[in-house]
Amino acid sequence: VHRQNLALLQRKLRDLHPADLAHIIEVLPQADRLVVWAELEPYHAAQVLLESSRSVRDWLVAETERPRLVALLGQLDPDDLAYISDSVDPEIVAEVYQSLDAREQSLFQSTIAYPDGSVGHLMSPEFVSVRDGRDLGGALEDVRRRGELPPHTEALFVVDARNVLRGALSLKDLLLREPSAQVSAVMSTDVVSFTPQERASDAARAFERYDLIAAPVVDERGKLVGRLTVDVVMDFLRRQAQSEALLRAGLAGEEDYFAPAWTSAKNRWLWLFVNLLTAFLASRVIGLFESTIQDLVALAALMPIVASVGGNTGNQTVALVIRGLALDRLTRANTGHLLKKELFVGLMNGAVWGTVVGLAAAALYGSVPLGLVMAAAILLNLVVAAMVGCAVPLVLQRLGRDPAQGSSVLLTFTTDCMGFFIFLGLARAFLV
Amino acid sequence: VHRQNLALLQRKLRDLHPADLAHIIEVLPQADRLVVWAELEPYHAAQVLLESSRSVRDWLVAETERPRLVALLGQLDPDDLAYISDSVDPEIVAEVYQSLDAREQSLFQSTIAYPDGSVGHLMSPEFVSVRDGRDLGGALEDVRRRGELPPHTEALFVVDARNVLRGALSLKDLLLREPSAQVSAVMSTDVVSFTPQERASDAARAFERYDLIAAPVVDERGKLVGRLTVDVVMDFLRRQAQSEALLRAGLAGEEDYFAPAWTSAKNRWLWLFVNLLTAFLASRVIGLFESTIQDLVALAALMPIVASVGGNTGNQTVALVIRGLALDRLTRANTGHLLKKELFVGLMNGAVWGTVVGLAAAALYGSVPLGLVMAAAILLNLVVAAMVGCAVPLVLQRLGRDPAQGSSVLLTFTTDCMGFFIFLGLARAFLV
Repeated sequence: VHRQNLALLQRKLRDLHPADLAHIIEVLPQADRLVVWAELEPYHAAQVLLESSRSVRDWLVAETERPRLVALLGQLDPDDLAYISDSVDPEIVAEVYQSLDAREQSLFQSTIAYPDGSVGHLMSPEFVSVRDGRDLGGALEDVRRRGELPPHTEALFVVDARNVLRGALSLKDLLLREPSAQVSAVMSTDVVSFTPQERASDAARAFERYDLIAAPVVDERGKLVGRLTVDVVMDFLRRQAQSEALLRAGLAGEEDYFAPAWTSAKNRWLWLFVNLLTAFLASRVIGLFESTIQDLVALAALMPIVASVGGNTGNQTVALVIRGLALDRLTRANTGHLLKKELFVGLMNGAVWGTVVGLAAAALYGSVPLGLVMAAAILLNLVVAAMVGCAVPLVLQRLGRDPAQGSSVLLTFTTDCMGFFIFLGLARAFLV
Repeated sequence: VHRQNLALLQRKLRDLHPADLAHIIEVLPQADRLVVWAELEPYHAAQVLLESSRSVRDWLVAETERPRLVALLGQLDPDDLAYISDSVDPEIVAEVYQSLDAREQSLFQSTIAYPDGSVGHLMSPEFVSVRDGRDLGGALEDVRRRGELPPHTEALFVVDARNVLRGALSLKDLLLREPSAQVSAVMSTDVVSFTPQERASDAARAFERYDLIAAPVVDERGKLVGRLTVDVVMDFLRRQAQSEALLRAGLAGEEDYFAPAWTSAKNRWLWLFVNLLTAFLASRVIGLFESTIQDLVALAALMPIVASVGGNTGNQTVALVIRGLALDRLTRANTGHLLKKELFVGLMNGAVWGTVVGLAAAALYGSVPLGLVMAAAILLNLVVAAMVGCAVPLVLQRLGRDPAQGSSVLLTFTTDCMGFFIFLGLARAFLV
């Protein structure tokens, strides 16, 4: 019966799209995953490796016997092999590489030569080009002789005799225009192209802005070397959004939901450590004022409010600035404007909400001076939060770092320390 | 001279892509924006409205005289007009609507009938269909006679006599196969299609998973009613990612970077208010233990550490769960597994880091019991954080709300209150 079930499973799996298979594997507990994984044919298994998330891919590779791994990696296109080669033991990659023919080896090399996050790393060698000297009828002949068009081909790239990109000929024009028309007369010359060295995130922005489906990649002399397609770009954007959200929460990267708890715990240690360190430093700021708190214990209850309001409003500013940087909306020219505005917003909110909280504190503890100190501390900490909230992502960006990573920690650390310091300092000066 | 400059500006603007114009307008301070905006021709201005962010679009509409607004809205396709009609005074929309012909009016109506976030709201009426009874030569004739193909057409939709979707015929096959072949024999029948009622986010996931460029939209009887294209889907995903990041920071939505400070301040009030309220409640928890703090003032300095570590690790769990829900990786079947795992991770991290912090506290204040209380409080608060971090997004999701919105506030509120309560409660029981 068990064998019958397996046969049924195998038949069902064969009909599924590789992306669906990858998804099924992601959501299965690790033991069940291995059952499904073992039943996949090499071609399907290779596609699943390509489609699954980094953490799950690494795990699958580690769980697969070397001969099977070599066999299934051999099923991949050379650029796809290069794409996932980081997850595989270099020796095994070398073994697969040996089995490729010379053209495939050179494709593998040219993909692996470009770093992760560059256009070169994402581009594909699959494209169709036509010479600019031909007429449409001749171009159509060429395409027919080729017998195949790669997916996402909305246009053919037009090149001259030296393979330099001259324009793009849409399939639409190839279909609709007179066969006797010249390619060079019909083609559009207004083509967005990229170089392999360009950052993938810049290319992705161009894809979004100009609604591109596929774009040519050219080297520094303008020669056509590859093609970047929208599916790869969407994939890149999704992975980027994902890692951004996780980075902001201090997770090293995608975490396999079914990794052992021990692995997950260690994955989060760096952040926990940083967090403990900053919390400890903020605690030392409070320690400086222990005698003041001893004299007026209400301060202990009120001080977290000052810190928390600063942290939250500062994080709003951080989110706005990061978004502005990501969308290229913040330039050198308008940063000063934003800074002034956030400062003003901080002042206004500080005045309004400082008053509200000050009144509440004064009423609760029956002390007008305490209310005044509370209001002043909130006002000042919101100004600090606005300044630091603008400065931190901008400085990180200027240092060449990802502004999303660490902005929040640095901001909260500052607003905590400053919040405690301002509030307790004012209290020591005016209240006790 | 001024007039010459304007003429030069106008010439420069005319050559730009509408998406670039929209970007320029976004990054200009409001006064400069108006200068550029006034120089745009109606067609370009209409495209800029379509491409710009919601907040900037609303502002541009408000700044434009009614006759000009009517003229430029008249330049839009009916589905695009419906798309941005939320930003425009209904009277003006009605005036533009009157100037449309009957077919355009019905297109407008059918787009506006579907809510924001549905496939129907995003679909376009521009598509090319061919009848399944024809041969390829006949289909090609039809397309030629039409003389135009909408952008992102990689395939023609194949319908039967009752306009029911039967399959898709790729342009590739139209180009490469014999003209005498039957459309129904060549077409692919394995077509991913959507209904107008479906959620746009589900459709977007399918676009990502199956690398789609364009997909047919059919009504409940399978009749072809529209087309969804990848550029619209990417746009939708970008807006969604954006609003998610801002929502998580408690910003009502996209904020115009150059809106007056007063508008921005009010935009953030709800969140500030919620934040103050929760901080105030947490402060009351501390208030319960004022006499304990009076007896041992070190508690005041140490208590924020317990709260902060809980908040940060809890937010890691929240980020993982939200991500898992968004990617459809968390199902009813594996939620229990995740809960158990996060609990275990919390216990482990609590044991390891609770010990570290406990030792530090004991050394700093020269009191072993204080260190023990600190360690126990951190362990317990990390367990609370793990449980609440899993529960909050799952419950919000089950209540039909966006799990990204508010998860963080609720979590931090709980870990703050519980952190203070556990730590000060243990201290009262065992230390003073």
